[in-house]
Amino acid sequence: MKKYLIVVAGGKGVRMGGSVPKQFLSVKGKPVLMRTLEAFYSCNKGMELIVVLPEEQQSCWKHLCAEHGFHVPHKVASGGETRFHSVKNGLELIPGEEGLVGVHDGVRPFVSAEVIAECYRQAESREAVVPVIDVVETVRRLLPDGGSETVPRSDYRLVQTPQVFAVKLLKQAYAQDYVPQFTDDASVVEALGHPVYLVPGNRENIKLTTPFDLKMAEALIKD
Amino acid sequence: MKKYLIVVAGGKGVRMGGSVPKQFLSVKGKPVLMRTLEAFYSCNKGMELIVVLPEEQQSCWKHLCAEHGFHVPHKVASGGETRFHSVKNGLELIPGEEGLVGVHDGVRPFVSAEVIAECYRQAESREAVVPVIDVVETVRRLLPDGGSETVPRSDYRLVQTPQVFAVKLLKQAYAQDYVPQFTDDASVVEALGHPVYLVPGNRENIKLTTPFDLKMAEALIKD
Repeated sequence: MKKYLIVVAGGKGVRMGGSVPKQFLSVKGKPVLMRTLEAFYSCNKGMELIVVLPEEQQSCWKHLCAEHGFHVPHKVASGGETRFHSVKNGLELIPGEEGLVGVHDGVRPFVSAEVIAECYRQAESREAVVPVIDVVETVRRLLPDGGSETVPRSDYRLVQTPQVFAVKLLKQAYAQDYVPQFTDDASVVEALGHPVYLVPGNRENIKLTTPFDLKMAEALIKD
Repeated sequence: MKKYLIVVAGGKGVRMGGSVPKQFLSVKGKPVLMRTLEAFYSCNKGMELIVVLPEEQQSCWKHLCAEHGFHVPHKVASGGETRFHSVKNGLELIPGEEGLVGVHDGVRPFVSAEVIAECYRQAESREAVVPVIDVVETVRRLLPDGGSETVPRSDYRLVQTPQVFAVKLLKQAYAQDYVPQFTDDASVVEALGHPVYLVPGNRENIKLTTPFDLKMAEALIKD
């Protein structure tokens, strides 16, 4: 079955406190986004990769690819106003309704080969699959009265990417009008009434969003 | 106001996959538990520190302290069957009902001086204070029917330590009978009907429970 991946890399880098978009920040000498694309490419050379980048970052990306001799084949789509619009733009580069499509955060370079394989494998029958991990900390829920309460953490999961779907289903989902409750692709698909299947993610698959995360990332790279 | 700290270090190290209890594992040449005690000692030399350790680990701890020339003054209490019982044993070393007591995980060496100070400061008036951080990931709740749903992550917080209380209140809370719903000290205090006040924690204050966390820890230590 044909496999696609949309890598969403629309970050402006504000939380990193710098002017370089977080997906272009270098971790041990290589931009994070390249590490992310390599994770999928090394897993499956036949997967079609689509990177969604804000228009104003595309020439910079091209320049970086040349500088680093980056040869992982990929297409580039233009980022939209929100993540929803960016994924929608990426989907437009996928012809027809056959196959499976994953959506992955550009700043998650540490997804494991096992998690990638399992998400796509399960999506063949389940059509909507997301990787999740357990919550290690105690969890509190804020209450409308300003207070808060402990909730059973075993009832909760933290969601990672890639979230993988049947192309037909994801296209149908993204044909809906945008609402702010669409925080990830699973929530867009669920708005159609389609259930989402959970598989175990890998704990290292952190989203690099703060300078603290970059320090973590440096520690995780062996070379 | 007199300040106490109970450091709970009852881990058997199973999740680390080794036979050394996780609180004794060395991070850049020094056991985690020593780093944790130093974080509080360097913040407030007058704070009375109580370490709760399983009986069978106490001679090993004494040996490690001698070997490392570890001179942060502290008492040792014996660990109980669960975290609840361990904290209760630690509380018995605190005379009377005056002052404030924090309870902290032995494997959280990266708590910041600001968070420690703020938790104790707020506890003077609030009597029950816990540090929390925002959830970065999308959160899903498991449903009784086997499905799951996305919940608004802005309604949730992840709980860290130190959790700081008026001594009188915490003693009263720990006089209750144990129930498995007591996952942290705040939940024990809440069972009395006393509200818990939240303050911002620091993101680096991770709980070292897996080999992955130890790698993170190495990266966070500058010396």
